[in-house]
Amino acid sequence: MATLRDVADAAGVHPGTASRALNPETKHLVSPTTMRRVRRAARQLGYVPNTFARSLRTARSRSIGVIIPDITNPLFPPMMRALEDTLGAESYHLLTVNTDNDPAREASQVEHLRNRGVDGIVLASASTHDPTLVALHEQRVPTVLINRQSREVPLPSVVPDEAAGIRQALSHLRSLGHQRIMHVAGPPDTATGMQRRRTFADAMVAHGLPFAEEQIVAARSYSFAEGARCAAEAVDSGLAFTAVVAANDLLAVGALGELERRGLPCPDRVSIIGFNDIPMLDRLRPPLTTVRVPAYQIGEEAARLILDRLDDPEGEPTHLELPVSLVVRGSTSSPDTGASTPVGA
Amino acid sequence: MATLRDVADAAGVHPGTASRALNPETKHLVSPTTMRRVRRAARQLGYVPNTFARSLRTARSRSIGVIIPDITNPLFPPMMRALEDTLGAESYHLLTVNTDNDPAREASQVEHLRNRGVDGIVLASASTHDPTLVALHEQRVPTVLINRQSREVPLPSVVPDEAAGIRQALSHLRSLGHQRIMHVAGPPDTATGMQRRRTFADAMVAHGLPFAEEQIVAARSYSFAEGARCAAEAVDSGLAFTAVVAANDLLAVGALGELERRGLPCPDRVSIIGFNDIPMLDRLRPPLTTVRVPAYQIGEEAARLILDRLDDPEGEPTHLELPVSLVVRGSTSSPDTGASTPVGA
Repeated sequence: MATLRDVADAAGVHPGTASRALNPETKHLVSPTTMRRVRRAARQLGYVPNTFARSLRTARSRSIGVIIPDITNPLFPPMMRALEDTLGAESYHLLTVNTDNDPAREASQVEHLRNRGVDGIVLASASTHDPTLVALHEQRVPTVLINRQSREVPLPSVVPDEAAGIRQALSHLRSLGHQRIMHVAGPPDTATGMQRRRTFADAMVAHGLPFAEEQIVAARSYSFAEGARCAAEAVDSGLAFTAVVAANDLLAVGALGELERRGLPCPDRVSIIGFNDIPMLDRLRPPLTTVRVPAYQIGEEAARLILDRLDDPEGEPTHLELPVSLVVRGSTSSPDTGASTPVGA
Repeated sequence: MATLRDVADAAGVHPGTASRALNPETKHLVSPTTMRRVRRAARQLGYVPNTFARSLRTARSRSIGVIIPDITNPLFPPMMRALEDTLGAESYHLLTVNTDNDPAREASQVEHLRNRGVDGIVLASASTHDPTLVALHEQRVPTVLINRQSREVPLPSVVPDEAAGIRQALSHLRSLGHQRIMHVAGPPDTATGMQRRRTFADAMVAHGLPFAEEQIVAARSYSFAEGARCAAEAVDSGLAFTAVVAANDLLAVGALGELERRGLPCPDRVSIIGFNDIPMLDRLRPPLTTVRVPAYQIGEEAARLILDRLDDPEGEPTHLELPVSLVVRGSTSSPDTGASTPVGA
């Protein structure tokens, strides 16, 4: 196996210089040209730095804690993959923990990760009122929020442009001729749920569409089962509607199944739009129209932000909002004006 | 925050005893009764051990490296979740890396993880000939294989009963009246691909069904696109068939789409069976019949095996084979004897 001395010899520099060039914490001490020469030599020789030894020397663990609600929610694997691809290339390892959006579990996981000496934290948990975020901010732990922002503390964040997504969904439905539109909202204790709900209400009014709070049915979790329950609640409410905008794809797919079971096929009787564009939606029948969130890119940007934060913990926090796009598939069509009564009427 | 002394006081023991009781490496030095008393006190007080400091003292990192092909393959998130739930409860953190089944990337990731001082490795990469496994075995790195076994080295492993899965799929098709059955096999360089392919050939012969090697079309990766390509190859081969057993769900869903595009709807013209039972298959139309693999349970068992391995690195390796079950849905039915020609004839 190649040693640091081999790399230094190949690059024609002193081993101390090679060490500084290869260490992200000290690379600014050597010239860009030297750094490139050393890194090229390291790559060609297949040099692997001994990061465990280095972390003992520098009291850095070269690890990043990643806190997500649940890896089995299909939104998160592409983000995780991007974080690992990007941070792994900088010799960081990820310590991933799941919290099920439980604030107590989140607080204890943050504590564990800090005791373990992670250099920073990427946090995708979505609780709206989150004392953990305040603590992370006050204690100056390098932290980046992913897929959510905080209204309480100015931590750097990467989110999809949720408002644009909801607006595009409503524009599409309106252009098809829909007027009476329900929203299956995300859980009230999640940042994403509250943000999309607010935007739905605002955009309905902005589009001049009829809107009352009764048109919102809130899920208790992001799941198929809750989508089905909310669809049942919407039908049972007696409110007339010809379209549903759901706060995420799991809710949309759950609602679709329940509406079909009640003899309200999609899109013939009800058009449905999801949010995120998780895998396999194009293979459902009907394929689901949804707002595509660039999940992998969100992970990449979050990785870059946490690296920036480690370099400059006191810098101004960056907030990135990545563009989304409406993917029109088979679950939306013009409302069936021939049907004797609209849904719920 | 509670200290070790608080826990010791609450449990009525000396702090040294409390420390031994709370450390998985030394807990055998105290009596089971004392251990329970200390652990209960720690839980009640919300005591969090400082694992980073402990790892410096004991030269253990209390971390486990987890090597998977790709977290975006829906088979893996439930396994990862189970590993974290189970190992997290024992104060271990997971360092997860993706290899895309690339042996070179796997070798370099193992090197990185070892340099970082992980206590053990859980490996789900699936290459058939894998020098990394030999090295891990020879260097006595505590290692557990998940979702694959090795024919080369006796490392502990947890796998689904793949042979039973394939046999159940074929029994089901035979009982429906199918005779001419194709296999869309996994990549030839994966352990799962080769295992399922061998079992398919053996079980066809055992069932007295006509079998020739031409009935196997091998994918180059586990993906929708390769499922579609293999289905096209099967149709173009001119071989007659009324059913397809695919080596995993992604291949099955890809094949289903391609056969429909070619005017061979499922199940009217071709019955299709997948493997794994990833989420949302029940919401496809037709819903996919598949072999359900207990992914979460596989992760749990792997977590227990690696903990055993850390306690007793020289013990006999355990091999667990967890039962699978056929989930019959809408993608399988009796062959259409009324159709003028069978597929491909």
